[in-house]
Amino acid sequence: MKDLKGRTEIGFEKHIFICENERIEGHPRGCCSDLGKNQIRMLFKEEISKKKLSGKIRANKAGCLDFCEQGPTVVIYPEGIWYQIQNPEKDVKEIVKSHLIKGKIVKRCLIKL
Amino acid sequence: MKDLKGRTEIGFEKHIFICENERIEGHPRGCCSDLGKNQIRMLFKEEISKKKLSGKIRANKAGCLDFCEQGPTVVIYPEGIWYQIQNPEKDVKEIVKSHLIKGKIVKRCLIKL
Repeated sequence: MKDLKGRTEIGFEKHIFICENERIEGHPRGCCSDLGKNQIRMLFKEEISKKKLSGKIRANKAGCLDFCEQGPTVVIYPEGIWYQIQNPEKDVKEIVKSHLIKGKIVKRCLIKL
Repeated sequence: MKDLKGRTEIGFEKHIFICENERIEGHPRGCCSDLGKNQIRMLFKEEISKKKLSGKIRANKAGCLDFCEQGPTVVIYPEGIWYQIQNPEKDVKEIVKSHLIKGKIVKRCLIKL
């Protein structure tokens, strides 16, 4: 059976969640959204579309992912890899090309405790 | 090393994303948020807290998960199981008790195409 979008399977090969939680200015835990609002998600969507991976890989807005001090935070499932995006243009391109397409984690962007 | 919350590991054992995307009334694809706004997430948080699983299991707000016609939609990672919550009080309690604690999928709530 197909759904209204013609899909025959539930879900995505890779599912990216980007924290876009907004906090009041000066909050002690910081705020992932301070850096360019939805810029990171839009960059992911753009790269996914360019590589013709729409439908297989999805970039989603998320509420607070609870790693605010290491933000802006991104988590990729099903593998559960957590990234800190410090340079959106560069980092997103590399994560798509290396992690999402080749399956190779981008170590320099990993969140560290 | 520990982060500010005392954690020594990144991430969660189970990560629940609940679609809270809002669409204009009458949108042809429907809208997960029509059913009680953030009620589903609040119910998950309540059950997680009652079972003393906070920090291990996290319930997060998400943007549109793209299975609107089968909404309200919830996806649980890392396993990537997709649920449709038709009866929030009953379904959330059962998903926490059966799926999240015992690892047994709640078949009657699974999204079907």
